[in-house]
Amino acid sequence: MAGNAKASKSHKSHSHKNLSKKTHSEKSAPKDKKYIYYFGGGKAEGSGQMKDLLGGKGANLAEMTNLGVPVPPGFTLTTEACNLFYENDLNSPKWLDDEARKYMARLEREMGKKFGNLDDPLLVSVRSGAKFSMPGMMDTILNLGLNDQTVKGLAKKSKNERFAHDCYRRFIAMFGSVVLGIEKLEFEQIIAKKKEQRQIKQDSSLTTDDLKDIVQKFKALIRKKSGEDFPSNPYEQLFLARDAVFKSWNNPRAIEYRRLYNIPSHLGTAVTVQTMVFGNLGETSATGVGFTRNPSTGENLFYGEFLVNAQGEDVVAGIRTPQPIREMEKKLPAVYKQLKAITAKLEHHYKDLQDFEFTVQEGKLFMLQTRVGKRTTQAAVKIAVDLVKEKLLTKEEALLRIDPEDLNQLLHPRLDPKAEIRVIAKGLAASPGAASGRVVFSAEEAVRMAQKKEKVVLVRQETNPDDIHGMVVAQGVLTSRGGMTSHAAVVARGMGKPCIAGAEQIKVNEEKRFFSVGSLVVRGLEVITLNGSTGEVILGEVPTVTAELSGEFAEFMGWADKIRRLKVRTNADTPPDAEVAYKFGAEGIGLCRTEHMFFAPERVPVVQEMIMASNREERKRALDKLLPFQKADFKGIFLAMKGNPVTIRTLDPPLHEFLPKREVLMVELAELKTKGGDAIKIAEKERLLKRVEELAEFNPMLGHRGCRLGITFPEITEMQAKAIFEAALEAAKDGIEVHPEIMIPLVGFPSEFKNQKELVVNVANEVLSKSKSKYKIKYLIGTMIEVPRAALVADKIALEAEFFSFGTNDLTQLTLGFSRDDAGKFLKDYQEKGILPKDPFVHLETEGVGAAIRMAIEKGKKSRKDMKVGICGEHGGDPESIDFCNEIGLDYVSCSPYRVPIARLAAAHAVLGKATVASK
Amino acid sequence: MAGNAKASKSHKSHSHKNLSKKTHSEKSAPKDKKYIYYFGGGKAEGSGQMKDLLGGKGANLAEMTNLGVPVPPGFTLTTEACNLFYENDLNSPKWLDDEARKYMARLEREMGKKFGNLDDPLLVSVRSGAKFSMPGMMDTILNLGLNDQTVKGLAKKSKNERFAHDCYRRFIAMFGSVVLGIEKLEFEQIIAKKKEQRQIKQDSSLTTDDLKDIVQKFKALIRKKSGEDFPSNPYEQLFLARDAVFKSWNNPRAIEYRRLYNIPSHLGTAVTVQTMVFGNLGETSATGVGFTRNPSTGENLFYGEFLVNAQGEDVVAGIRTPQPIREMEKKLPAVYKQLKAITAKLEHHYKDLQDFEFTVQEGKLFMLQTRVGKRTTQAAVKIAVDLVKEKLLTKEEALLRIDPEDLNQLLHPRLDPKAEIRVIAKGLAASPGAASGRVVFSAEEAVRMAQKKEKVVLVRQETNPDDIHGMVVAQGVLTSRGGMTSHAAVVARGMGKPCIAGAEQIKVNEEKRFFSVGSLVVRGLEVITLNGSTGEVILGEVPTVTAELSGEFAEFMGWADKIRRLKVRTNADTPPDAEVAYKFGAEGIGLCRTEHMFFAPERVPVVQEMIMASNREERKRALDKLLPFQKADFKGIFLAMKGNPVTIRTLDPPLHEFLPKREVLMVELAELKTKGGDAIKIAEKERLLKRVEELAEFNPMLGHRGCRLGITFPEITEMQAKAIFEAALEAAKDGIEVHPEIMIPLVGFPSEFKNQKELVVNVANEVLSKSKSKYKIKYLIGTMIEVPRAALVADKIALEAEFFSFGTNDLTQLTLGFSRDDAGKFLKDYQEKGILPKDPFVHLETEGVGAAIRMAIEKGKKSRKDMKVGICGEHGGDPESIDFCNEIGLDYVSCSPYRVPIARLAAAHAVLGKATVASK
Repeated sequence: MAGNAKASKSHKSHSHKNLSKKTHSEKSAPKDKKYIYYFGGGKAEGSGQMKDLLGGKGANLAEMTNLGVPVPPGFTLTTEACNLFYENDLNSPKWLDDEARKYMARLEREMGKKFGNLDDPLLVSVRSGAKFSMPGMMDTILNLGLNDQTVKGLAKKSKNERFAHDCYRRFIAMFGSVVLGIEKLEFEQIIAKKKEQRQIKQDSSLTTDDLKDIVQKFKALIRKKSGEDFPSNPYEQLFLARDAVFKSWNNPRAIEYRRLYNIPSHLGTAVTVQTMVFGNLGETSATGVGFTRNPSTGENLFYGEFLVNAQGEDVVAGIRTPQPIREMEKKLPAVYKQLKAITAKLEHHYKDLQDFEFTVQEGKLFMLQTRVGKRTTQAAVKIAVDLVKEKLLTKEEALLRIDPEDLNQLLHPRLDPKAEIRVIAKGLAASPGAASGRVVFSAEEAVRMAQKKEKVVLVRQETNPDDIHGMVVAQGVLTSRGGMTSHAAVVARGMGKPCIAGAEQIKVNEEKRFFSVGSLVVRGLEVITLNGSTGEVILGEVPTVTAELSGEFAEFMGWADKIRRLKVRTNADTPPDAEVAYKFGAEGIGLCRTEHMFFAPERVPVVQEMIMASNREERKRALDKLLPFQKADFKGIFLAMKGNPVTIRTLDPPLHEFLPKREVLMVELAELKTKGGDAIKIAEKERLLKRVEELAEFNPMLGHRGCRLGITFPEITEMQAKAIFEAALEAAKDGIEVHPEIMIPLVGFPSEFKNQKELVVNVANEVLSKSKSKYKIKYLIGTMIEVPRAALVADKIALEAEFFSFGTNDLTQLTLGFSRDDAGKFLKDYQEKGILPKDPFVHLETEGVGAAIRMAIEKGKKSRKDMKVGICGEHGGDPESIDFCNEIGLDYVSCSPYRVPIARLAAAHAVLGKATVASK
Repeated sequence: MAGNAKASKSHKSHSHKNLSKKTHSEKSAPKDKKYIYYFGGGKAEGSGQMKDLLGGKGANLAEMTNLGVPVPPGFTLTTEACNLFYENDLNSPKWLDDEARKYMARLEREMGKKFGNLDDPLLVSVRSGAKFSMPGMMDTILNLGLNDQTVKGLAKKSKNERFAHDCYRRFIAMFGSVVLGIEKLEFEQIIAKKKEQRQIKQDSSLTTDDLKDIVQKFKALIRKKSGEDFPSNPYEQLFLARDAVFKSWNNPRAIEYRRLYNIPSHLGTAVTVQTMVFGNLGETSATGVGFTRNPSTGENLFYGEFLVNAQGEDVVAGIRTPQPIREMEKKLPAVYKQLKAITAKLEHHYKDLQDFEFTVQEGKLFMLQTRVGKRTTQAAVKIAVDLVKEKLLTKEEALLRIDPEDLNQLLHPRLDPKAEIRVIAKGLAASPGAASGRVVFSAEEAVRMAQKKEKVVLVRQETNPDDIHGMVVAQGVLTSRGGMTSHAAVVARGMGKPCIAGAEQIKVNEEKRFFSVGSLVVRGLEVITLNGSTGEVILGEVPTVTAELSGEFAEFMGWADKIRRLKVRTNADTPPDAEVAYKFGAEGIGLCRTEHMFFAPERVPVVQEMIMASNREERKRALDKLLPFQKADFKGIFLAMKGNPVTIRTLDPPLHEFLPKREVLMVELAELKTKGGDAIKIAEKERLLKRVEELAEFNPMLGHRGCRLGITFPEITEMQAKAIFEAALEAAKDGIEVHPEIMIPLVGFPSEFKNQKELVVNVANEVLSKSKSKYKIKYLIGTMIEVPRAALVADKIALEAEFFSFGTNDLTQLTLGFSRDDAGKFLKDYQEKGILPKDPFVHLETEGVGAAIRMAIEKGKKSRKDMKVGICGEHGGDPESIDFCNEIGLDYVSCSPYRVPIARLAAAHAVLGKATVASK
C-alpha cells in the first residue's frame, strides 16, 4: 500500500538506529542482541523498567510475572525487532521466525499444550505495545492458532462447540481485517445477513451451525478479497499477525496520535504473544475488571465488576449485567481472596491506584493487565493523601502525583456527569466550570435580563471591554472567535466564569440575534449550557454539582505550601474576587486593575463625563464623582485581604475603551441621517463621534495608556492615589493592617516613573498628614515591567522603583511583536509548522521574553538588592511558567482567584524539581 | 518682584558654585579672583577663549582689542560676578562697586574724559553677554552717564544740542524700563502725545525744546511710578544698571529661551561697560554693517551698507536709505581702507565669514561687533570650499562648518523668496520643498485630476496606505493630524515630496470637500502652496526656484566621502527613486519595500484578487499576474543601481491595508440598505466586508504581517523570490552586475527566518538552474532586526542570516511600546515635561533602543564574525542617529533618496568626532 510505503519511509528518516544493511539481512540471529523476551513460570526475562524495549504492555506483564502474580505466559518481540522490520523494507528477517519458534516451543512446554494441536490446541493473542500508551491506536489479534482442525480440539476440550466456533469466527474476522486489510464492515455484514435470515437480533442467539456457516462465508470473503486462502498453518498465522502489528505502528491513526502527544516516531512498537485464557469455560470460570480504590471518590474500597462464565468483552458490551466484585467472595471465595491479595500487592508495588483486568479459567486466576488507574482529581488528591498516611508515598511524591491543572476540576462547579446531554459544538475550553442560561447577544441585553433575575449566557463573535458589564452578569461566555487568551477568555478566567472561546463551527449573527451550527439555529433566549472544562456547547439546561473541597484537599495544599518558595498572590479587582482568592489561599493581591472598577453600569457615564471633559477642571469634577466608588472598592479589598499586601495598578487602558466604538457610531449616524433623523440627536452623536475619533488609535496596545495617561492627566493618578490612601486609613481604623503597593503601569523611562511617583507621594503625604491619624500606612511604589525598554534600563528604574512586577502579557506582546488579540491569525500555523511550539500567551516564552525578564531582575537587583520581584501576567497561573518563575528567583506569582491553588501546587512542583508537563 | 525671587531660587538650586556665604559677604574683593576684565589701548586682560567668564560679547571685544582692532574701550564684569549677585540675594557686594570705580578711572584715563564731567562727559553702554548668544533676550542700556548737567557738556562737545537731548531722553527711557521696571509703552505714549500736540509724524521732527520737555515728563513719570527721582549720579546709574542686567538673566523670556536651547541656567551673564561712540557727530562720522562675503551666494565680495552722520539704529529703522559700502571708498577713503584691512584680518583670524558693525566718530573707526555671519546653505558650502582653497581651513574643518540638515535647502525646489505670500496656517515641516496645486480631498480625485494633467495637493486629516496612489500623483501632501513620522510625513519624505503634517488649525471636511482655518474656507480645486521647509500653508500659487548644485557642492561632498567610514544606501521602491538616489551618491539600496509596488492603480485590483482568494490555487493565479510587475520594477532598480547591492524586503504590511476600510464599507452598506439598494451590490459589499472583518486587527502593527505572511502564505514569498531572481538574470544579461540582498522582515524566532530562507533558496536554485545562464548571481539572505526578541536571540538568528538590517522604526515602536502613528497624543507632553527630550522616531533613542541594537550586533557577530550590519529605519537619514550608527560600528545607513547627501555628510561628521547637534 502506498500509504504504508510512505509511512515506512518517513519512519526510516526519523530512525536513530545505526544498524547497517548487512545486519538487517543476516541469515541467523545476531549473538549480541536479544530480540525476544519470555515471561512465565513465575519469572520473566524482562522487567517493568524495560518499556523502551518491551513496550508498556510487555514490561508490565514481565513485572507482574516477576512479582509472582499469575499471568498467562508468553513472550514479547522487542521494539528493536519492529525497527528491524522497517529497516528491512517491511520484512522480518528469517532468523526472527526461527527465534519465535523456539519461544513458542518453550511456551508449549510450560502450558502443556501444543500450538496447532488437534486435541488441545495452544491459542495465543498477538498485541502491540509501545513505550507510551497509545490506546486503541494499533491492532490486536485474539485466538490465533485456530483452524478448521484445531477448532474441533477446542470444542472438545472446552466441551462447548458453540464457544469454539465463536472463537474461530472472531479470529478469522480479526485476522482478515488486521493482516489482510479487508474492511471490518464486510465481515459484520455477513453476520448481519445471517441474523436477518434467522430473524434474530443478538449475536448470542446464533447457533453453532450458524457460526460454522459464518466461518465458511468469512473464508470465502478472504479468498475473494485477497486472492488467497485463509492460512491454516498456525505459524504462518503468527508471523503474518506479527508483521501486521509492526505495520500498524505507522497506520494513519497512530501517526496522528503520536503527532498530538509528541511521541517520537522512531520508537516502534513491541509485539506480545500471550497464551489465551478463557473465562467462559463454565461456572468456575469468570472475567472481571476492577480498581484497588474508588476512582471517582478515592475511597479506599476494593471496587470492580465481574461475570461468571463470560468473556472480557461481555463485561464491556453490556449484554449481561456484571455483578459487583464483592459477590465474587461468595461465588469463588478462594479466587476472590487471591485476587484481593494480588491487587493489594500490585498497589503496594506501584504505590498507586491500580486498574486491573483478570480472567478465571476453570478456577485458576490470571491477571491480564494492571495499570495506574485514571481518576477524578478529587479521588487523586484523596488517594495521594491516603498513600502518604499508609506510608507508601512521601509527601513530596504525593504532591507530584497531581497535575496542578487538574485542580481546576475541584474549583469550579461542574456538569453532573450523569446527565444526558446534546453537544452541538465544541470550542476551546477557555475557562473551566459549567454554566447554563438563556442566550443573549449583547451586554445590554445581558444586563436587562439579569435585572429580571434571568440567568444568561453571553454569546458573541468576540468580546471587548464594552462587554464587561454583560460578562459580569452572565453565567458564562461563548465566542466564535479568539483563542485561549482572547479578551473573553482572559476576563472570564479572571472572573472565575466559564467560557468557551473560538467555537468556530458557530456562526453568530448578533444583529439578528441568533447563532447557527450547520443547520441548527439557536435563537436569543433559548437555553444552552457551556462546559468550560471541555469546550462543549450543549443544548438546554444541564444540572451541575459543586465539588466538595474535602479535608484531604486542604491537608494536601498545606504540604505544597510548606515546600514551595514562591508566594502566590491573586489578580483581583473587586472585594468579592479578593474574598474568593483569600479563601483559596492567596497571600496578597498582585494586581488590582483599577479600570475594571470603571466598567460597572452606574460608573460608566461618570467615566465618559471625565473623558468628554474639555478642560482640567471639568475632568476633575468628574473624577471627584469617581473617587467614592474607587475608595469603597479599595477598602473592601483591603479588608478581604486581611493584612496581606495589595498591589494596585493605576489606570491602564486607553480612554477610548470606555466610549462606544467608532464604527458603531458611524453606522448609527449614517442611518439617522439617511432617515432624516432628529437634528439634536445627530449633533449629540456627532460630538461623541468627534471625541471617539480624536481618541482613536491605530494600535491601542502601543498607544496613549498606562503611565502615559497619568502623565498627561495627572489628576487621574491623583484621584486614584487619594482613593487608595483614604481607603487604607479607613481600613486601618477598622483594625486591619494595610500594605498598599502602588504600581505604575507601562513604564519604559525612569523619568515616567519618577513623574508618577512624585504625584503619588505628594497625595500620600497630604492624605496621611491631614488625617492626623495615629495609623501609619506603610506603602511601596513600584512598576510593572512590560515594555522591553524597561528591562533594558531596569537598573535605572530600580533607583526609584521599590518593586518590579512583570506584566508578561504586554511584555510578551512587545518582545515578540505579537498582538494577543490578533495572533490567532498565524499562531496555529506557527504551531503546525513547528515554528513556535507553544502559545506564548499561555506558556511564558522563556528564551526571548524570559531573557528580558532575567535581564531586568539582574539589572534591577544591581541597583536595589532587596528589590521585590513578581509576575502578574496571565502566566502567573500557568504551572509551566511558574516553574520558570521559581527558577529565576521571583518572589511571587499572581494569578486569577480560581487558579490560586493551582499556582500553590505548581510552585511546590517547581521546588521539587520536576517539570510539571512531564507529570501527566 | 515675586517672579524674580522665584527665578533666583531656581537659579540657586541649579548653581554649581561652591562659594561659601562668607565669601559672598566679604567686605573687600577676594585677592585670588578677578571679577572685572579691562579691554582697550590695544590690549585686553581677557581673550576670545574666555566666553565662560566674559560672555560671548565680552570675549569678542577682548579678542578684537588684542588683535589690534580699534574697539571702544571698556571693561567686563564676569559671569561669576553675576552668580555672586544671585548668591547674595540679588545684591552685588560693596567691594564690587569699588572695583568698578577703579576700572572706570582707568577708562577715564584712556579716553581722556571723565565720567560725569560737565564739559566732556564719558558716556558708556551697559550690556549683557552670556556664554551662548541669546539675542534680544536680556537688557541693554546706552548713553549712561547723562544727567541734567552732563547733557549740556555733550551738547557743547558735539556741537549738537538736539543730539545731546535725544541721547538723554533715550537713556532715561531705557533706564526707566530696564532698571525701574516701568512699561516702555508709558514712555512711548509721552512721545506720541508730544508728536500729536505738535502735529508731526516722525521722531526726527522733534525739536530740541520738544526733547527737553519730554525729558522732564520722563523724569516726572519715573518719580510717580518708582516713588523716587531719576538718579543723576552716574555711578548710581552704573550700579543700578549693572544689577538690572544681572537680573535680566532670569527674566521669563530668557528662561524660556534657555529651556528651548538647552542652555544651563547656572551659567549667568557677564556685563560689559563700554565707551559710547557716535556716528552722528558730522560728515566725518558714520555707521554701518557688513559681511566679508556675500551671505546669500557665498561669493568672495565685500558686502555691506553704511550711512554718514547717522546712528546705528538709523540703518536698521529704514528712515534713510543706506548706501552700498563701496561708496565709502569715495567718501571716507582712509577709513574704508582701514575697515577692509580690519575685516579681512578678522575673517582670517576667525576663519569664517564675518558679520560686523562699525561706527566712525569724527574720522576715527571703531569696530563695535564682529561675529560669524549667518548664510544660506549654498553660500555656506561655497565659503567653506573657498576657505579651504585659501588655506584658511582644512577640509575636515570645512566639512564641520555645514550642518548636514541644512543641505536639505539645496536638494529640494524652494519657494521664490521674493514672492509675496499669504500664509493661512502652519503645520510641521514634515518633508521639505515647495508644492503648488489644486486642493483635492481623496486619492481617487487626485488620480482623476492628474490624468487631466492638473497639479494637485492632497489634503487629508491623515493618510494611510490607501492614499498612496494619490500621494504618488500629488505635488505635495497636507494633513491636519499626525507628527513628523506620521504616514504622510514618512511616505512623502520617501518620495521626496513636500509635506506639511499636523496642521492643527486646519479643519478638514473630506466628505464635503473643504477645509477651514478659522473663518477662512478653502474649497476643493482652489490652489494652495505648501512650503515643506517651514510648514507654511499658503493661499494661491507661489513661484519656485530650483537650487543649483554648484561645482563646490560636489567637491565638498567628495571630501565627506573620503572621510566617512559608513556606507550610505537608500530606501527606494521604484526605478525613478533609485535613479535619484544614485545621482545623490547612494551606494546601494538598503530597503526596497516591495509592497509599495502593489499600490499602483493598475495593480491594486490584482492584489485584492489575491487577498480575496479562497484557496491556494486562486491565490497563486493572482500572484502570477503580479509577478511581471514586480520583476520589471526589480530589473529597473538593478539597472539604476549599476552594480551596487540592492536589499529587497519581502512583503511586510498586513493584507487588510490593501482593502477598503471597515468603517467605510459599513457606512456604505448601512446607507445602501437604508435606501433599499441593489441586492447584488449589497451582497458584493457584504462579501468584501466579511473578508475585511476576517482580516481586521486590533493592533495591526503587532499583527499578521512581515514574515508571518510569508509563513502562512509561502506562495507570496515564492512569487517575490522568483521575480527577484528572474529580474537579476535579465539585468545580468544586460551587463549589469547584480547583488540582491533578500531581507526577511519582522523575524523574532530563528525558525521563522529558516522557513523563509528555505523558500527563497529553493526558488533561487530553480530559477538560476533552469535558465542555464552563464551569469552567476551572488545573493545574500538576511533579516531585519525590528522585534526586540530578535535582538535578544541575535546569536541564534545569525547562524542562518547573512546580514542584519535594523528596522529602527518598528524596533523603536516595540522597544518603547510607542505606536508611531499614535504617539503624537502624548509625545508633546513628554517633551514639555522633560520625560523624553526628543522624538524617538526622529532621533534614535540610544539608551534603550540603542542598547537593543548594540546587543544584537554583539550577539550576531559572535555567531558570524563578518556579519554585515546596517540600518534602514527613518533614523538612517538623521545626522544625530548616524553619529550613533558610526559609533556602534554599523556598515551602512540607508535613507530616503533626498537625504542621501545629508547622510554622507553626517557620516563624515561622525568620523570627525563632533556631535553634529553642537555644530549649529
